[in-house]
Amino acid sequence: MGLKRCQMGLPHNFSSADSLITIDLDAIAANWQTLDAMSGPNTLTAGVVKANAYGLGVDQVAPKLAAAGCRLFFVMSLDEGIALRQILDANGDHGMPIFCLSGMHLGQEDEFLIHRLVPVINDLTQLARLGMRAQSQNMPLPAALHIDTGMNRLGLNADETDWLIEHIGDDANALEGIEIAYLMSHLSSAEAPDDAANATQLRSFSDLRPFFGGIKASLANSGGVMLGSDYHFDMVRPGIALYGCHPADDGKKRTVVTSELRPVATELRPVATWDARILQLRRANLGEAVGYGGTHILTRDSLIATIGVGYADGYRRALGGIAFGDIGGHSAPIIGRISMDSMALDVTDVPEGVMQSAGGVRLIGDHYTVPMMAMDSGTISYEIMTSLGQRPHRNYIGNLHQAS
Amino acid sequence: MGLKRCQMGLPHNFSSADSLITIDLDAIAANWQTLDAMSGPNTLTAGVVKANAYGLGVDQVAPKLAAAGCRLFFVMSLDEGIALRQILDANGDHGMPIFCLSGMHLGQEDEFLIHRLVPVINDLTQLARLGMRAQSQNMPLPAALHIDTGMNRLGLNADETDWLIEHIGDDANALEGIEIAYLMSHLSSAEAPDDAANATQLRSFSDLRPFFGGIKASLANSGGVMLGSDYHFDMVRPGIALYGCHPADDGKKRTVVTSELRPVATELRPVATWDARILQLRRANLGEAVGYGGTHILTRDSLIATIGVGYADGYRRALGGIAFGDIGGHSAPIIGRISMDSMALDVTDVPEGVMQSAGGVRLIGDHYTVPMMAMDSGTISYEIMTSLGQRPHRNYIGNLHQAS
Repeated sequence: MGLKRCQMGLPHNFSSADSLITIDLDAIAANWQTLDAMSGPNTLTAGVVKANAYGLGVDQVAPKLAAAGCRLFFVMSLDEGIALRQILDANGDHGMPIFCLSGMHLGQEDEFLIHRLVPVINDLTQLARLGMRAQSQNMPLPAALHIDTGMNRLGLNADETDWLIEHIGDDANALEGIEIAYLMSHLSSAEAPDDAANATQLRSFSDLRPFFGGIKASLANSGGVMLGSDYHFDMVRPGIALYGCHPADDGKKRTVVTSELRPVATELRPVATWDARILQLRRANLGEAVGYGGTHILTRDSLIATIGVGYADGYRRALGGIAFGDIGGHSAPIIGRISMDSMALDVTDVPEGVMQSAGGVRLIGDHYTVPMMAMDSGTISYEIMTSLGQRPHRNYIGNLHQAS
Repeated sequence: MGLKRCQMGLPHNFSSADSLITIDLDAIAANWQTLDAMSGPNTLTAGVVKANAYGLGVDQVAPKLAAAGCRLFFVMSLDEGIALRQILDANGDHGMPIFCLSGMHLGQEDEFLIHRLVPVINDLTQLARLGMRAQSQNMPLPAALHIDTGMNRLGLNADETDWLIEHIGDDANALEGIEIAYLMSHLSSAEAPDDAANATQLRSFSDLRPFFGGIKASLANSGGVMLGSDYHFDMVRPGIALYGCHPADDGKKRTVVTSELRPVATELRPVATWDARILQLRRANLGEAVGYGGTHILTRDSLIATIGVGYADGYRRALGGIAFGDIGGHSAPIIGRISMDSMALDVTDVPEGVMQSAGGVRLIGDHYTVPMMAMDSGTISYEIMTSLGQRPHRNYIGNLHQAS
């Protein structure tokens, strides 16, 4: 046979899966505290946990944030709001505001009330619908009011905002019966501190505030938190930074350079690692093809490790031939096309002793961060995280209760 | 205000979600029957339902395939095998073979036995482990034996195969106590009928068969089924074609041209459509920016529809500015960057009457197929399907039991 078979020392927790994403909830809590400390004591720091907490598991992340001191949450859809309410209630975190960014749509009114969710109102139709409901219930209903200041995505446009302001205090006051918790807007370019759009949006938002009396205000996403106190107002809404990625880290540099970003950026702790079981080791010869389409031809006799992670696990197919795993500190390049459920790595240069004691291949970690993976696959960290598949097992560090 | 607000006639089933993927199980069953009819009566047609049935829901797809006549299934990991066994048992489909392509790894032996799963053995170490277990149980254990014929991904390599064959019938016979259900290999380039790799792999596989006596054989994936009867042997294993995508359809053509592919290709029925709720309609002016980074500048006064689908739903971010939705037969281009949870579409050219009666925006359908979406985002249909997010609701047509 020639090849001494390697008996990999498998981490116990691969169990019935072929790979394992380890999520450090303590790091998420610490990142929340880091971000919270960047704004003054009168600025609340929300937890943005939409998209299943950016793919990491809202059922684990939300209670951890609550325990860290987070007192309000943002999700996208009604669906996500209902799920989060159940998670928080089950954890004894009662009465925390949950804002649904998608707004409240026709037919959803009862569910919003039942689950005590707060719609982020994006247009006058939604506002009118909420107002009518408040009138019929004869009680004020809570909402946030989203005014667009330059994204043209969600939020009242300039005409709608003008109309609304014009009628505040008269018979057509669309805010009648509605308890506006926050006046909100959203920054389009906060990850780029020098982008003129930031100051323009800040000015537009600040100019509007006086028309809404003493209503509290919120403008900043993660990048906005780092833009400084002018952007903080009464509440900030960090998302990606909670999960360990600096919004300005495009993966080009291995380490975020302090001088280009706010000093605190380097204090964000990475949150996720991803490890894969080696399914098999094989010798293959110079000139042989590897993977679908035979796109990779071996330029030497090689030792190949096949792992049970493919693009169906969220490891993007574009990374075939580009990215690399890590085995005990040694690089293992991915060769050939990534398959749906597996990929091949060149482990020829990994010393035999290292292979024998390795517990698997690390795919995301210090050697290859989420931003680096994003850059190499032509996208951003946010998409990498929210695309992580369901098939890898999740292992949580620092969870409040033992995971089931 | 100027703009008459459109009251979209929402399909009931958006419910608490912002989008809905409709999966036609009848089409999947019909595709299975189409593929089954391509091989002779002595060739079984398996159902490949790994990766959650290519993202469409194994809990719905597998029972439907069983009802259509499918008698054996393939998944990847032990995890998937256990889940499928439970699904089939709950549906009264007892005793059907489930093959786990990942193989049987150290510590998984009990689970394989308990759930009556059949490992696809990929190397001699796994084979030896299974053989020892069979000996200690004093009963033969089933397996499939995967021999690599040119992918260098999974399966015994040439040296291992030679060693195995050499010892069949002597004291070191590694097949002792193991009931090999199928001798298997996998094609690297079956989607390209003219690729020489197909004939080479077929010859290698055919040359090996006589050494394994009367053991049944399986070589063909979807592409292999279409390569003709030489490739069929005793069992074929279609995956992607079950789900309505021809393996050779790279999305460049709107309609698959019959002359280039096997005639039956055009008989595959599309399986999935994706519809999104319109969260809001807004007027915006010439010169204004849309979306993150302000990358899209409006070249005219526009009507913009924002929908609650973003890359966290599996609608790839790379499609911003490229792809388009459909509203009542009218094209609605995506403008600006796709956000995590939403995107903006230019609906200026959609007639007002159409907007008012539309139930939403269609994202995947006849106007824009999965292969077209794949081509536009630089990948293949398989990755599009397996990346569909968890957040869109699933609506099943033709399910055996009402979905919960």
